[in-house]
Amino acid sequence: MNAKEPFIAAAARVDAAAIEPLPNSRKIYLEGSRPDIRVPMREIAQNDTPTAFGGEKNPPIFVYDCSGPYTDPQADIDIRRGLPALRAGWIAERGDTQTLPGPSSAYGRQRAADASLDALRFPGLRRQPLRARTGCNVTQLHYARRGIITPEMEFVALRENLNRAAYLESLRKTGENGGKMAALLTRQHPGQSFGASIPQDITPEFVRSEVARGRAVIPANINHPEAEPMIIGRNFLTKINANIGNSALGSSIQEEVEKMTWAIRWGGDTVMDLSTGKNIHETREWIVRNSPVPIGTVPIYQALEKVDGRAEALTWEIFRDTLIEQAEQGVDYFTIHAGVLLRYIPLTAHRMTGIVSRGGSIMAKWCLAHHTESFLYTHFEEMCEIMKAYDAAFSLGDGLRPGSIYDANDDAQLAELKTLGELTDIAWKHDCQVFIEGPGHVPMHLIKENMDLQLKYCREAPFYTLGPLTTDIAPGYDHITSGIGAAMIGWYGTAMLCYVTPKEHLGLPDKNDVKEGIITYKLAAHAADLAKGHPGAQIRDNALSKARYEFRWEDQFNLGLDPDRARQFHDETLPKESAKIAHFCSMCGPHFCSMKITQEVRHFAAEQGIAENEAIAKGLEAKAIEFVKSGAEIYRKV
Amino acid sequence: MNAKEPFIAAAARVDAAAIEPLPNSRKIYLEGSRPDIRVPMREIAQNDTPTAFGGEKNPPIFVYDCSGPYTDPQADIDIRRGLPALRAGWIAERGDTQTLPGPSSAYGRQRAADASLDALRFPGLRRQPLRARTGCNVTQLHYARRGIITPEMEFVALRENLNRAAYLESLRKTGENGGKMAALLTRQHPGQSFGASIPQDITPEFVRSEVARGRAVIPANINHPEAEPMIIGRNFLTKINANIGNSALGSSIQEEVEKMTWAIRWGGDTVMDLSTGKNIHETREWIVRNSPVPIGTVPIYQALEKVDGRAEALTWEIFRDTLIEQAEQGVDYFTIHAGVLLRYIPLTAHRMTGIVSRGGSIMAKWCLAHHTESFLYTHFEEMCEIMKAYDAAFSLGDGLRPGSIYDANDDAQLAELKTLGELTDIAWKHDCQVFIEGPGHVPMHLIKENMDLQLKYCREAPFYTLGPLTTDIAPGYDHITSGIGAAMIGWYGTAMLCYVTPKEHLGLPDKNDVKEGIITYKLAAHAADLAKGHPGAQIRDNALSKARYEFRWEDQFNLGLDPDRARQFHDETLPKESAKIAHFCSMCGPHFCSMKITQEVRHFAAEQGIAENEAIAKGLEAKAIEFVKSGAEIYRKV
Repeated sequence: MNAKEPFIAAAARVDAAAIEPLPNSRKIYLEGSRPDIRVPMREIAQNDTPTAFGGEKNPPIFVYDCSGPYTDPQADIDIRRGLPALRAGWIAERGDTQTLPGPSSAYGRQRAADASLDALRFPGLRRQPLRARTGCNVTQLHYARRGIITPEMEFVALRENLNRAAYLESLRKTGENGGKMAALLTRQHPGQSFGASIPQDITPEFVRSEVARGRAVIPANINHPEAEPMIIGRNFLTKINANIGNSALGSSIQEEVEKMTWAIRWGGDTVMDLSTGKNIHETREWIVRNSPVPIGTVPIYQALEKVDGRAEALTWEIFRDTLIEQAEQGVDYFTIHAGVLLRYIPLTAHRMTGIVSRGGSIMAKWCLAHHTESFLYTHFEEMCEIMKAYDAAFSLGDGLRPGSIYDANDDAQLAELKTLGELTDIAWKHDCQVFIEGPGHVPMHLIKENMDLQLKYCREAPFYTLGPLTTDIAPGYDHITSGIGAAMIGWYGTAMLCYVTPKEHLGLPDKNDVKEGIITYKLAAHAADLAKGHPGAQIRDNALSKARYEFRWEDQFNLGLDPDRARQFHDETLPKESAKIAHFCSMCGPHFCSMKITQEVRHFAAEQGIAENEAIAKGLEAKAIEFVKSGAEIYRKV
Repeated sequence: MNAKEPFIAAAARVDAAAIEPLPNSRKIYLEGSRPDIRVPMREIAQNDTPTAFGGEKNPPIFVYDCSGPYTDPQADIDIRRGLPALRAGWIAERGDTQTLPGPSSAYGRQRAADASLDALRFPGLRRQPLRARTGCNVTQLHYARRGIITPEMEFVALRENLNRAAYLESLRKTGENGGKMAALLTRQHPGQSFGASIPQDITPEFVRSEVARGRAVIPANINHPEAEPMIIGRNFLTKINANIGNSALGSSIQEEVEKMTWAIRWGGDTVMDLSTGKNIHETREWIVRNSPVPIGTVPIYQALEKVDGRAEALTWEIFRDTLIEQAEQGVDYFTIHAGVLLRYIPLTAHRMTGIVSRGGSIMAKWCLAHHTESFLYTHFEEMCEIMKAYDAAFSLGDGLRPGSIYDANDDAQLAELKTLGELTDIAWKHDCQVFIEGPGHVPMHLIKENMDLQLKYCREAPFYTLGPLTTDIAPGYDHITSGIGAAMIGWYGTAMLCYVTPKEHLGLPDKNDVKEGIITYKLAAHAADLAKGHPGAQIRDNALSKARYEFRWEDQFNLGLDPDRARQFHDETLPKESAKIAHFCSMCGPHFCSMKITQEVRHFAAEQGIAENEAIAKGLEAKAIEFVKSGAEIYRKV
């Protein structure tokens, strides 16, 4: 450790709270068809059912795990070194990339040569950037269309299935050993998926076919080999994105890296670095080298920085150089506001809140200043050439999204969406991966129109929305105003939900806000999966509810999205350890517990052998087999 | 002050934080057709638009105010004395009540005679209880059916209109004085109300007709003259309820009274006292005497207390005495689990979480123990006789509501709902006011069925739901899992949403939790009003968004549901006063502010006189007049 580099020394470790394994959980890896496909998952162990309630074993639950090596006690974390390059071999063996001698962007070279930045620079191995060999296209979409199932696709397939087969097998055994509720745990309500095509099990071939038809995206820049592959598409689990990033006014590199590790601990599937302050380039390098999840950016922010904030001074050349600079660092997807056309700008003149997208307003200003069409639109095919050389995905930005309930679903917004559909076709022509950004502020009854038009205009390219916020009147609670809209639009078919924190409209989120935003969006995404009837989505709800019913407090905490808070809230009224095996809780006290009384009702009925009730119950048995009126025994393997 | 009564001395004042007027707000009273009809409202003043943005006046906004005299600086608050009996004259002049010499319940007399309770007892004027004169019926429904518009109905009508006419008039003046955005502020999206019949303006006659057909309830016990009338019905603003109450394990009378004043400060429309611990009777007296909002209870809790927690020892006589005891204290509505029938109990045997309603499980246990039908069901008509003698409303409890996603919309739940419909008819036969409680835990796609069946079975009697929670996997965040379901079911037609706090399933809510639950439900209720297209609902969103767009930070804070938190969040990054008039914020910093750039875009376009854009803009003017594709200029009075 070099004493002259206090920043780097301080940055060696991330916050201890971010790397501790979650309670009663262990990291497991499912191996794929080859030993270097190792898919991480979190296994949550459960206690046995108390003897009074039947004493059965409760097998562990497997849940999706975005946290990467950070929660693996075997991993040696040093953020000065970065994460292992798990995809490097897969990329190399395809033989379609070339190793560049150094950054090919002018800006990348300039920063690399600037010795004054040494103290800030990521000190780990500076991997030489990769680019597609001339004439090659390295996108997952390109491989998929040629019928190739990449290791990334297989990884994703294993990941999406959540080791469900193993869980069902252990439940079967529990049932054989007399576990009475085992069968219940496998059932779920048939959903309403509004035309999604979600199979029972995700195969690598299904992943390939969905990527091939553009209905799903695997953000996987060849310069971000540290990332664990994940997929964004409406026939997969609903994902969430967490935004981090400093502004000119606050927060250091260290803080941003910690926000990233914190965000993925709680379930951020991707992270967008929206920094607009100083040293964006160096901050990004730290983040990408340490991120096991795909990283997105909005390159126009940095381009604007390069012209001192004067939007009218932007040029295609500066933007292009920025794109290459970031693609060679490993950014997995770029928000590009190429749908803000000159002719749409006047459509915003009668709005309540004009253009609220930063990227959208920058481009609007540029278009007006030059009286000409956006260079992002006119150079879109050139951009595709760059994107496919690194497999950076397009996230086509909604620069004209509504910033208030008043402006929801207006002509400006919908005109832009249509243009994004046209750009999607162009991207697909180049085998570039693409998804579409959506609003914003939308009252509940206008949300579905957004989804329906997006599916129509953009031909099922994945939708990625910011909320939407369902009212404007609750600053300080916009994670909730938007969590409502997010759950609904996720149900309707949105593939990824961009989180909103409680600080939205008011300030920069700190770590607490990041966590609050993440958990809110995880629960919204899960509520969407349940409503869509995503196979197996209800397993976790069932397990947690059974734990609750059986007064297995520890399991109830651990199966939840935030075990720490659940435990803390419980302990505020009943702090003793003994209370965690108590057959009551603080809400009602020992005499009034409805769950306790229900248990008594069951025992009472059983003991008394109440004839008529039993007869009814037996009649119900047959009925229960079809479950909740419509036969949802998705996983019952008799 | 008596030194021997430390509790009462301490209780003289409520928490200062609960009585301070909200920032930049003042309490106003609208006078009705007679001087004793004075309807409270909160007027929020706004600053002028900064000169750079046009400099127009922004008239004050009027918002619904549940906080009673507590936020009125003119009021002399002493909770030992209780609130003024604003309805006493209205009740008396109807000439259909008699003043009782004292409590007519055995329990009420016993408590009154117990000197050991003196230190705990509410020390204010002990008003003698009222009851209907023999042969009289004192319900608002009874008056409504006889064509009588009571002062309560007129009060409600004025309250629901939110002084909108005055606001529109001041906007008209602003427009005449050159205010460019005045017209925008009056517009809103047409909603989707799923068959609700919401008029443009609420007249006293409309209130009467809705009450008469049972589609709305005014909870207004003649023994709670302190309450400011409010209405629960799907053609009125969506209301929320906050639960308070101690258990055997915690919290004092003082704390419960403070939770009530705190809950109404933030917008609780009614408060349910769910206490199950000691001194329920005395706690309730303190709460009712100090509450300007209707109070609800679940009388079976106290009845169970009277038989030492042994459900099987309950009798109709004990329950009846409890009902009278509480009705004479002034409880405005009672949750009665009369739909838990013996034959439905076996339907819960295959559930994941059995019976989770406390009242439901108590009654289930009773039914099984006695092998006979619930006394709440068999004595329902006798109950109606009591209810109509005090105008206590029925809140027909859903004792078999689902306690997990698994159990949602199952046979037990829906069978009970149908029975609640039958009981509604019986209550209406007696001119008793009635609304219906609903779930619970329900995945999003099954929520609408709850509303549709409730409307059908219960013939549009108001629905009052607990959430519903849309997933089980987020203990610690169930205000949000349920806020999602609450907003949706409110949109579909639920009239009142029972809040859920972050402590749900884990512990007893403290004041912070109460506030978090209230604000979450206020925003959910408002999102529902917006989606239904409730007249004028968007006024507050429009005003707040305009303030946001014009960088009027103080107004943005003050127009929101929680000005304190909004200000606090803002100040965490930009604490200085000057920042509150800054034309940027901490999220993007001064160079990257999209709102600032949008302003520049507008100015730029105007200065340059860009011909083609202007032509387009003029073409749009005509189009904008019909607003958002379908002509929603609800309030524009040209």
